[in-house]
Amino acid sequence: MDDLKLSRAFMLIEPGPVVLVTTHDGAKDNIMTITWTMVMGFSADFAITTGPWNHSYAALRDTKECVLSIPTVDMIDTAVGVGMCSGTDTDKFEKFGLTRVEGRHVKAPLIKECLANIECRVVDFVDRHSIIVLEGVAAYIDNARKEKRMIHAVGDGTFIVDGDTIDRKEMMHAKIPSGL
Amino acid sequence: MDDLKLSRAFMLIEPGPVVLVTTHDGAKDNIMTITWTMVMGFSADFAITTGPWNHSYAALRDTKECVLSIPTVDMIDTAVGVGMCSGTDTDKFEKFGLTRVEGRHVKAPLIKECLANIECRVVDFVDRHSIIVLEGVAAYIDNARKEKRMIHAVGDGTFIVDGDTIDRKEMMHAKIPSGL
Repeated sequence: MDDLKLSRAFMLIEPGPVVLVTTHDGAKDNIMTITWTMVMGFSADFAITTGPWNHSYAALRDTKECVLSIPTVDMIDTAVGVGMCSGTDTDKFEKFGLTRVEGRHVKAPLIKECLANIECRVVDFVDRHSIIVLEGVAAYIDNARKEKRMIHAVGDGTFIVDGDTIDRKEMMHAKIPSGL
Repeated sequence: MDDLKLSRAFMLIEPGPVVLVTTHDGAKDNIMTITWTMVMGFSADFAITTGPWNHSYAALRDTKECVLSIPTVDMIDTAVGVGMCSGTDTDKFEKFGLTRVEGRHVKAPLIKECLANIECRVVDFVDRHSIIVLEGVAAYIDNARKEKRMIHAVGDGTFIVDGDTIDRKEMMHAKIPSGL
Protein backbone atom coordinates (compact mmCIF):
# COMPACT_ATOMS: atom_id res chain seq x y z
CA MET A 1 0.00 0.00 0.00
CA ASP A 2 1.33 3.39 -1.01
CA ASP A 3 0.45 6.76 0.47
CA LEU A 4 -2.07 8.75 -1.52
CA LYS A 5 -2.21 12.52 -1.20
CA LEU A 6 -5.28 13.39 0.84
CA SER A 7 -6.22 15.96 -1.79
CA ARG A 8 -6.74 13.05 -4.20
CA ALA A 9 -8.83 10.89 -1.88
CA PHE A 10 -12.15 12.25 -3.17
CA MET A 11 -11.28 10.73 -6.57
CA LEU A 12 -11.75 7.26 -5.04
CA ILE A 13 -15.35 7.96 -4.01
CA GLU A 14 -16.45 10.43 -6.69
CA PRO A 15 -17.08 7.74 -9.37
CA GLY A 16 -19.62 6.11 -7.03
CA PRO A 17 -18.10 2.70 -6.31
CA VAL A 18 -19.19 0.03 -3.86
CA VAL A 19 -17.32 0.75 -0.61
CA LEU A 20 -16.41 -1.40 2.38
CA VAL A 21 -16.49 0.42 5.72
CA THR A 22 -14.45 -0.98 8.59
CA THR A 23 -14.93 -0.12 12.24
CA HIS A 24 -13.44 -1.21 15.57
CA ASP A 25 -15.75 -1.11 18.58
CA GLY A 26 -13.03 -1.48 21.21
CA ALA A 27 -13.16 -5.27 21.18
CA LYS A 28 -13.87 -6.37 17.62
CA ASP A 29 -13.43 -5.22 14.04
CA ASN A 30 -16.32 -5.23 11.62
CA ILE A 31 -16.95 -4.50 7.94
CA MET A 32 -20.07 -3.35 6.14
CA THR A 33 -20.73 -2.84 2.44
CA ILE A 34 -22.31 0.43 1.38
CA THR A 35 -23.05 2.19 -1.87
CA TRP A 36 -24.82 5.21 -0.37
CA THR A 37 -21.87 7.59 -0.30
CA MET A 38 -21.29 11.17 -1.48
CA VAL A 39 -18.27 13.37 -1.99
CA MET A 40 -18.73 16.78 -0.33
CA GLY A 41 -15.64 18.70 -1.39
CA PHE A 42 -12.37 18.65 -3.30
CA SER A 43 -10.30 16.89 -0.70
CA ALA A 44 -11.54 14.22 1.66
CA ASP A 45 -15.02 15.20 2.84
CA PHE A 46 -17.63 12.50 2.50
CA ALA A 47 -21.17 11.63 3.53
CA ILE A 48 -22.58 8.16 4.01
CA THR A 49 -26.13 7.09 4.77
CA THR A 50 -26.49 4.45 7.47
CA GLY A 51 -28.21 3.97 10.78
CA PRO A 52 -28.92 1.71 13.75
CA TRP A 53 -30.13 -1.06 11.42
CA ASN A 54 -26.46 -1.74 10.63
CA HIS A 55 -24.33 -3.43 13.30
CA SER A 56 -21.42 -1.12 12.42
CA TYR A 57 -23.45 1.94 13.37
CA ALA A 58 -22.87 1.56 17.12
CA ALA A 59 -19.10 1.54 16.60
CA LEU A 60 -19.30 4.57 14.31
CA ARG A 61 -21.35 6.37 16.94
CA ASP A 62 -19.05 5.41 19.84
CA THR A 63 -15.61 5.72 18.26
CA LYS A 64 -16.32 8.32 15.57
CA GLU A 65 -13.83 6.51 13.33
CA CYS A 66 -13.90 4.26 10.30
CA VAL A 67 -11.99 3.28 7.17
CA LEU A 68 -13.44 3.45 3.67
CA SER A 69 -11.96 0.60 1.59
CA ILE A 70 -12.46 0.30 -2.14
CA PRO A 71 -12.82 -3.22 -3.53
CA THR A 72 -12.36 -4.05 -7.22
CA VAL A 73 -14.28 -6.33 -9.55
CA ASP A 74 -12.29 -9.44 -8.57
CA MET A 75 -13.62 -8.89 -5.03
CA ILE A 76 -17.30 -8.67 -5.96
CA ASP A 77 -18.30 -11.82 -4.08
CA THR A 78 -16.50 -10.52 -1.01
CA ALA A 79 -18.23 -7.14 -1.29
CA VAL A 80 -21.65 -8.75 -1.73
CA GLY A 81 -20.97 -11.42 0.91
CA VAL A 82 -19.89 -8.84 3.51
CA GLY A 83 -23.21 -7.12 2.94
CA MET A 84 -25.22 -10.30 3.37
CA CYS A 85 -24.03 -11.29 6.84
CA SER A 86 -23.81 -9.44 10.16
CA GLY A 87 -20.98 -8.58 12.51
CA THR A 88 -23.24 -9.64 15.37
CA ASP A 89 -22.31 -13.27 14.72
CA THR A 90 -19.56 -13.20 12.08
CA ASP A 91 -15.89 -12.21 11.99
CA LYS A 92 -15.97 -10.94 8.43
CA PHE A 93 -12.18 -10.63 8.12
CA GLU A 94 -11.92 -14.35 8.88
CA LYS A 95 -14.95 -15.42 6.84
CA PHE A 96 -13.78 -13.62 3.70
CA GLY A 97 -10.03 -14.11 4.14
CA LEU A 98 -9.30 -10.41 4.42
CA THR A 99 -6.12 -9.04 5.97
CA ARG A 100 -6.19 -6.29 8.60
CA VAL A 101 -3.58 -3.55 8.29
CA GLU A 102 -3.16 -1.11 11.13
CA GLY A 103 -3.95 2.51 10.31
CA ARG A 104 -2.01 5.54 11.53
CA HIS A 105 -4.83 7.63 12.91
CA VAL A 106 -7.81 5.40 13.65
CA LYS A 107 -8.34 2.01 15.28
CA ALA A 108 -10.51 0.73 12.46
CA PRO A 109 -8.33 -1.48 10.25
CA LEU A 110 -7.41 -0.98 6.61
CA ILE A 111 -8.11 -3.93 4.29
CA LYS A 112 -4.95 -5.05 2.55
CA GLU A 113 -6.73 -6.72 -0.37
CA CYS A 114 -8.57 -3.54 -1.40
CA LEU A 115 -7.37 -1.13 -4.08
CA ALA A 116 -7.45 1.82 -1.71
CA ASN A 117 -8.20 2.79 1.88
CA ILE A 118 -9.14 6.09 3.50
CA GLU A 119 -8.86 6.55 7.27
CA CYS A 120 -11.76 8.73 8.38
CA ARG A 121 -13.04 10.58 11.41
CA VAL A 122 -16.73 11.27 11.93
CA VAL A 123 -17.34 15.02 11.78
CA ASP A 124 -21.09 15.04 12.33
CA PHE A 125 -24.23 12.93 12.55
CA VAL A 126 -27.24 14.37 10.71
CA ASP A 127 -29.64 12.12 12.56
CA ARG A 128 -32.86 13.27 10.92
CA HIS A 129 -31.58 11.92 7.59
CA SER A 130 -29.32 9.07 8.83
CA ILE A 131 -26.37 10.86 7.25
CA ILE A 132 -22.88 10.56 8.73
CA VAL A 133 -20.35 13.19 7.65
CA LEU A 134 -16.74 11.98 7.46
CA GLU A 135 -13.37 13.64 7.08
CA GLY A 136 -10.51 11.65 5.58
CA VAL A 137 -7.28 11.90 7.56
CA ALA A 138 -5.02 9.59 5.54
CA ALA A 139 -5.33 7.72 2.25
CA TYR A 140 -3.55 4.79 0.65
CA ILE A 141 -3.61 3.11 -2.74
CA ASP A 142 -2.08 -0.14 -3.95
CA ASN A 143 -0.37 1.09 -7.10
CA ALA A 144 1.06 -2.37 -7.83
CA ARG A 145 -2.40 -3.89 -8.08
CA LYS A 146 -3.23 -4.97 -11.61
CA GLU A 147 -7.01 -5.05 -11.29
CA LYS A 148 -8.14 -1.50 -10.68
CA ARG A 149 -11.71 -1.64 -12.01
CA MET A 150 -14.23 -0.64 -9.36
CA ILE A 151 -17.84 -1.84 -9.18
CA HIS A 152 -21.04 0.19 -9.02
CA ALA A 153 -24.22 -1.19 -7.47
CA VAL A 154 -27.42 -0.75 -9.44
CA GLY A 155 -29.61 -1.67 -6.50
CA ASP A 156 -31.40 -4.70 -7.93
CA GLY A 157 -28.59 -7.17 -7.33
CA THR A 158 -26.68 -6.27 -10.48
CA PHE A 159 -23.40 -4.35 -10.62
CA ILE A 160 -21.73 -2.25 -13.30
CA VAL A 161 -17.98 -2.65 -13.76
CA ASP A 162 -15.74 0.30 -14.72
CA GLY A 163 -15.36 0.44 -18.50
CA ASP A 164 -13.44 2.84 -20.72
CA THR A 165 -11.96 6.10 -19.47
CA ILE A 166 -12.58 9.37 -21.30
CA ASP A 167 -10.27 12.37 -20.86
CA ARG A 168 -11.80 15.86 -20.68
CA LYS A 169 -9.01 17.45 -18.60
CA GLU A 170 -8.39 20.18 -21.14
CA MET A 171 -12.05 21.15 -21.38
CA MET A 172 -12.34 21.18 -17.57
CA HIS A 173 -9.00 22.84 -16.88
CA ALA A 174 -10.51 25.94 -15.23
CA LYS A 175 -12.45 23.86 -12.66
CA ILE A 176 -9.96 21.16 -11.69
CA PRO A 177 -8.25 21.81 -8.36
CA SER A 178 -4.56 22.52 -8.92
CA GLY A 179 -2.03 20.12 -7.46
CA LEU A 180 -4.17 17.01 -7.86
CA MET B 1 -40.01 8.90 -22.51
CA ASP B 2 -41.71 6.12 -20.59
CA ASP B 3 -42.92 6.16 -17.01
CA LEU B 4 -40.59 4.49 -14.54
CA LYS B 5 -41.94 3.14 -11.26
CA LEU B 6 -40.85 5.51 -8.52
CA SER B 7 -39.64 2.52 -6.51
CA ARG B 8 -37.01 1.98 -9.21
CA ALA B 9 -35.79 5.58 -9.41
CA PHE B 10 -32.98 5.02 -6.91
CA MET B 11 -31.42 2.60 -9.39
CA LEU B 12 -30.63 5.54 -11.68
CA ILE B 13 -28.56 7.32 -9.03
CA GLU B 14 -27.17 4.37 -7.04
CA PRO B 15 -24.38 3.56 -9.57
CA GLY B 16 -23.01 7.10 -9.07
CA PRO B 17 -23.41 8.69 -12.52
CA VAL B 18 -22.89 12.26 -13.61
CA VAL B 19 -26.27 13.99 -13.22
CA LEU B 20 -27.77 17.11 -14.77
CA VAL B 21 -30.03 19.11 -12.44
CA THR B 22 -32.61 21.40 -13.97
CA THR B 23 -34.38 24.22 -12.16
CA HIS B 24 -36.88 26.94 -13.05
CA ASP B 25 -36.62 30.19 -11.11
CA GLY B 26 -39.97 31.60 -12.17
CA ALA B 27 -38.55 33.29 -15.25
CA LYS B 28 -35.82 31.06 -16.65
CA ASP B 29 -34.74 27.45 -16.73
CA ASN B 30 -31.23 26.44 -15.85
CA ILE B 31 -29.11 23.28 -15.77
CA MET B 32 -26.12 22.32 -13.66
CA THR B 33 -23.89 19.27 -13.75
CA ILE B 34 -23.22 17.48 -10.48
CA THR B 35 -21.59 14.27 -9.39
CA TRP B 36 -21.99 14.78 -5.65
CA THR B 37 -25.16 12.78 -5.16
CA MET B 38 -26.25 10.02 -2.76
CA VAL B 39 -29.13 7.61 -2.58
CA MET B 40 -30.77 7.63 0.86
CA GLY B 41 -33.34 4.85 0.64
CA PHE B 42 -34.93 2.15 -1.50
CA SER B 43 -37.27 4.38 -3.42
CA ALA B 44 -36.59 7.94 -4.45
CA ASP B 45 -34.78 9.68 -1.60
CA PHE B 46 -31.61 11.50 -2.59
CA ALA B 47 -29.05 13.94 -1.26
CA ILE B 48 -26.98 16.35 -3.33
CA THR B 49 -24.21 18.67 -2.22
CA THR B 50 -24.39 22.19 -3.60
CA GLY B 51 -24.54 25.76 -2.36
CA PRO B 52 -24.71 29.45 -3.18
CA TRP B 53 -21.62 29.13 -5.41
CA ASN B 54 -23.90 27.54 -8.03
CA HIS B 55 -26.36 29.77 -9.90
CA SER B 56 -28.99 27.02 -9.66
CA TYR B 57 -28.92 27.16 -5.86
CA ALA B 58 -31.16 30.24 -5.60
CA ALA B 59 -33.86 28.53 -7.67
CA LEU B 60 -33.57 25.35 -5.57
CA ARG B 61 -33.92 27.44 -2.43
CA ASP B 62 -36.86 29.48 -3.72
CA THR B 63 -38.89 26.86 -5.58
CA LYS B 64 -37.86 23.72 -3.69
CA GLU B 65 -38.07 21.81 -6.97
CA CYS B 66 -35.71 20.32 -9.51
CA VAL B 67 -35.30 17.51 -12.00
CA LEU B 68 -32.43 15.01 -11.95
CA SER B 69 -31.57 14.05 -15.55
CA ILE B 70 -29.18 11.27 -16.41
CA PRO B 71 -26.98 11.78 -19.48
CA THR B 72 -25.18 8.94 -21.24
CA VAL B 73 -21.71 8.67 -22.71
CA ASP B 74 -22.71 10.17 -26.07
CA MET B 75 -23.65 13.32 -24.13
CA ILE B 76 -20.35 13.70 -22.29
CA ASP B 77 -19.43 17.00 -23.95
CA THR B 78 -22.86 18.36 -23.07
CA ALA B 79 -22.50 17.23 -19.46
CA VAL B 80 -19.03 18.75 -19.15
CA GLY B 81 -19.99 21.88 -21.10
CA VAL B 82 -23.04 22.52 -18.90
CA GLY B 83 -20.73 22.43 -15.90
CA MET B 84 -18.27 24.88 -17.43
CA CYS B 85 -20.63 27.79 -18.05
CA SER B 86 -23.11 29.64 -15.85
CA GLY B 87 -26.83 30.23 -16.04
CA THR B 88 -26.16 33.85 -15.11
CA ASP B 89 -25.32 34.60 -18.75
CA THR B 90 -26.18 31.43 -20.69
CA ASP B 91 -29.36 29.67 -21.76
CA LYS B 92 -27.93 26.19 -21.50
CA PHE B 93 -30.88 24.49 -23.23
CA GLU B 94 -30.20 26.68 -26.27
CA LYS B 95 -26.41 26.50 -26.11
CA PHE B 96 -26.36 22.69 -25.94
CA GLY B 97 -29.38 22.01 -28.13
CA LEU B 98 -31.36 20.35 -25.37
CA THR B 99 -35.13 19.94 -25.49
CA ARG B 100 -37.34 20.92 -22.57
CA VAL B 101 -40.19 18.57 -21.69
CA GLU B 102 -42.80 19.69 -19.21
CA GLY B 103 -42.99 17.69 -16.01
CA ARG B 104 -46.18 16.70 -14.20
CA HIS B 105 -45.36 17.89 -10.71
CA VAL B 106 -42.61 20.51 -10.86
CA LYS B 107 -41.88 23.53 -13.03
CA ALA B 108 -38.27 22.51 -13.66
CA PRO B 109 -38.12 20.91 -17.10
CA LEU B 110 -37.18 17.35 -18.00
CA ILE B 111 -34.44 16.97 -20.62
CA LYS B 112 -35.68 14.96 -23.58
CA GLU B 113 -32.21 13.87 -24.74
CA CYS B 114 -31.31 12.24 -21.40
CA LEU B 115 -31.71 8.55 -20.62
CA ALA B 116 -33.87 9.23 -17.58
CA ASN B 117 -35.43 12.04 -15.58
CA ILE B 118 -36.65 12.25 -11.99
CA GLU B 119 -38.94 15.08 -10.88
CA CYS B 120 -37.95 16.02 -7.33
CA ARG B 121 -39.11 18.16 -4.45
CA VAL B 122 -36.69 19.55 -1.88
CA VAL B 123 -37.42 17.97 1.50
CA ASP B 124 -34.75 19.71 3.56
CA PHE B 125 -31.64 21.89 3.44
CA VAL B 126 -28.83 20.75 5.74
CA ASP B 127 -27.10 24.11 5.53
CA ARG B 128 -24.13 23.35 7.75
CA HIS B 129 -22.98 20.75 5.20
CA SER B 130 -24.42 22.26 1.98
CA ILE B 131 -26.57 19.14 1.59
CA ILE B 132 -29.97 19.31 -0.08
CA VAL B 133 -32.31 16.39 0.55
CA LEU B 134 -34.66 15.52 -2.33
CA GLU B 135 -37.70 13.32 -2.74
CA GLY B 136 -38.51 12.00 -6.20
CA VAL B 137 -42.17 12.41 -7.16
CA ALA B 138 -42.14 10.98 -10.70
CA ALA B 139 -39.57 9.18 -12.86
CA TYR B 140 -39.19 8.55 -16.57
CA ILE B 141 -36.83 6.49 -18.73
CA ASP B 142 -36.31 6.41 -22.47
CA ASN B 143 -36.50 2.66 -23.05
CA ALA B 144 -36.07 3.09 -26.81
CA ARG B 145 -32.68 4.74 -26.39
CA LYS B 146 -29.86 2.58 -27.68
CA GLU B 147 -26.99 4.16 -25.75
CA LYS B 148 -27.63 3.49 -22.08
CA ARG B 149 -24.09 3.68 -20.69
CA MET B 150 -23.78 6.31 -17.97
CA ILE B 151 -20.61 8.21 -17.10
CA HIS B 152 -18.86 8.55 -13.74
CA ALA B 153 -16.66 11.53 -12.91
CA VAL B 154 -13.28 10.79 -11.37
CA GLY B 155 -12.72 14.39 -10.34
CA ASP B 156 -9.55 15.16 -12.28
CA GLY B 157 -11.24 15.77 -15.63
CA THR B 158 -11.46 12.10 -16.57
CA PHE B 159 -14.63 10.02 -16.68
CA ILE B 160 -15.31 6.31 -16.42
CA VAL B 161 -17.91 4.81 -18.76
CA ASP B 162 -20.18 1.96 -17.67
CA GLY B 163 -18.62 -1.37 -18.63
CA ASP B 164 -19.83 -4.93 -18.12
CA THR B 165 -22.75 -5.84 -15.88
CA ILE B 166 -22.46 -8.59 -13.28
CA ASP B 167 -25.53 -10.33 -11.86
CA ARG B 168 -25.61 -11.22 -8.15
CA LYS B 169 -29.40 -11.15 -7.77
CA GLU B 170 -29.54 -14.67 -6.41
CA MET B 171 -26.84 -14.02 -3.80
CA MET B 172 -28.58 -10.79 -2.74
CA HIS B 173 -32.13 -12.09 -2.90
CA ALA B 174 -32.83 -11.60 0.82
CA LYS B 175 -31.91 -7.89 0.68
CA ILE B 176 -33.42 -6.73 -2.61
CA PRO B 177 -36.70 -4.85 -2.16
CA SER B 178 -39.57 -6.89 -3.58
CA GLY B 179 -41.50 -5.52 -6.52
CA LEU B 180 -38.55 -3.73 -8.13
